[in-house]
Amino acid sequence: MITSTQNPHVKAVRALQTRKRAREQEQAFVIEGLHLAREAVVAEAQARLVLYTEDLDARGRGLVNSLAKLGAETETVSPSVMAACSGTETPPGLVAIVQAPLLHPPPRLDLALVLDGVSDPGNLGTMLRTALAAGVQLVVLTGDTVDPFNPKVVRAAAGAHFHLPMHSVTPADLPASVEGLDLWLAEARSGVPHAQVDWRSPCALIIGSEAHGPSEAVRALPARRVHVPTAQQSESLNAAVATGVLLFEIARQRGMP
Amino acid sequence: MITSTQNPHVKAVRALQTRKRAREQEQAFVIEGLHLAREAVVAEAQARLVLYTEDLDARGRGLVNSLAKLGAETETVSPSVMAACSGTETPPGLVAIVQAPLLHPPPRLDLALVLDGVSDPGNLGTMLRTALAAGVQLVVLTGDTVDPFNPKVVRAAAGAHFHLPMHSVTPADLPASVEGLDLWLAEARSGVPHAQVDWRSPCALIIGSEAHGPSEAVRALPARRVHVPTAQQSESLNAAVATGVLLFEIARQRGMP
Repeated sequence: MITSTQNPHVKAVRALQTRKRAREQEQAFVIEGLHLAREAVVAEAQARLVLYTEDLDARGRGLVNSLAKLGAETETVSPSVMAACSGTETPPGLVAIVQAPLLHPPPRLDLALVLDGVSDPGNLGTMLRTALAAGVQLVVLTGDTVDPFNPKVVRAAAGAHFHLPMHSVTPADLPASVEGLDLWLAEARSGVPHAQVDWRSPCALIIGSEAHGPSEAVRALPARRVHVPTAQQSESLNAAVATGVLLFEIARQRGMP
Repeated sequence: MITSTQNPHVKAVRALQTRKRAREQEQAFVIEGLHLAREAVVAEAQARLVLYTEDLDARGRGLVNSLAKLGAETETVSPSVMAACSGTETPPGLVAIVQAPLLHPPPRLDLALVLDGVSDPGNLGTMLRTALAAGVQLVVLTGDTVDPFNPKVVRAAAGAHFHLPMHSVTPADLPASVEGLDLWLAEARSGVPHAQVDWRSPCALIIGSEAHGPSEAVRALPARRVHVPTAQQSESLNAAVATGVLLFEIARQRGMP
C-alpha cells in the first residue's frame, strides 16, 4: 500500500490534477470515483493507473479489475494519500489516470458546438455533458476556454470526455473547423428567438465567454445571432442552461428521439 | 471604518452567511457584489445594512447610496473584514443584508415549479434563475431541498430571489400548494418525451433530488412522468439543465415571447 505522497504514482496523479502542461505532455487526465470509472470501462478507455483505498466496495473492486484489463497498473493507497490525489473535499474510493481518447467526428457533420472563451470549469463540463446528450458530434474549443481536462470540467462532464470528439483550435484554424455549417452565435437579446430558427440544416452553435462575449476570431465569422427569449424581470440565463435550451430545441426540430 | 471581525455588524453578516437558523429568525439574507446589489435596488428590496471597502468604484458607491435610501445603514470595512464577511474566494467590494422579500404568485397560477429535495446549492440557484427567465410564477420547495437563502444559492440565482415567489411547504401541505394544476414529474427515461406533452394547460413541473429521486410526498401526487430524450451514449443531464430544457419547452409551446 502506498502511504507517502512522495510516491511517483501519487506525484503523477497530482501533476495531472493540477497542471494543464502535464496533461498535455502526457495526453492523459485523472478521473475520480466509481461513476467516471464505470464510464471509462464502458468506453474501453486506455487506463494507465488506478489508485484505490482498501475500503472500496465490491462494485468498486470490480471496476478496478476492469480498468486493469484495459491496461492500468493498480495500487492501494492510504486514506491520506487518496485525499492528496483527489480534487474534491470528500475523496472518492478510487482515482485513475486514463489516456485522453482520440475520437473522430463523422465525416459529414450535422451539429457542432463551438465554445469560445468559456471560463468556468463547471459550466464547461456541464456544456460537454449536455452536448453529448443532445447529439452534438464535435465540440470545437477556442479562445480562452478553460482546459477541458481540468478536474472540475471532467467531474461536471460526467463521462462525456469518453464519447464526444473535442478539438482545440487556434483563431486562425477556427473557420476551417466549421466550414460548410450554418453558424449561429448565441447572444442574449440579439438576433432571432431560438424557436423561430429552422435548425434542420447542418449547423454550428457558438457559445461565447460568460463575461466578455465573443472573441475577435468568432466576430469575424459569418454567424447569425440567436437568443433564448426570457421574461422581462430576468437578467439572463446561466451559460450552460442557455446552451442546453438551444441544443435541445435543435434536437426537437430534428425529430429526436 | 470597521476593522474587527468582532464588530456586531460583521457578526450579523457572518451569522446570516453560515446559519440557516439565523436567516429564518431574521427573515433576511446576505447579497454580495455589485450585480446583486443592483438587482436589490431595481426590485426596491428592503435593505438593512451595507458593508463596503474604501476602494469601491463610483458605480458601487452609487449602489451603496441607493441601498441607504432603501433603509440600509452603511459602513466601510477593512479588506480583511470584507474577506471574513464574504462566502467567496475573491471578496467583493460590498456585502449587504436585505430582507427576504414577501412575494405573492398571481391568484390564478399557470406555471409552478416544485423542487423536491434538490440538494446542490449551485443547482438550486441556477434553477431559480432559470425559472424566473422562463416565466415560472411560483416555486414550491419541499423535501430536503437546500435552503434557498444559502449564500451559494443566492449567488447562482443572480437576483431571482427579488422577483420569484417561493414557498417552502411540508409534505402534508404539498397537495394543496399545487391544487388544480396538471402535475408532471421529471424523471430520466420515464413517461412521455418532453416535446410530446401539450403544455398549454396550467401545470406544475416537479424536479426531484439529484441523487435520490422523488420523496414519498411527491410519489403520492397524481403526477405523470416526463423526460428529456437524450442520445444513447449519454448517461443523463445535469438537473438544472434538464429543468431549463423542460421549462423553455413549456414557454415555447405557450408562445413566449
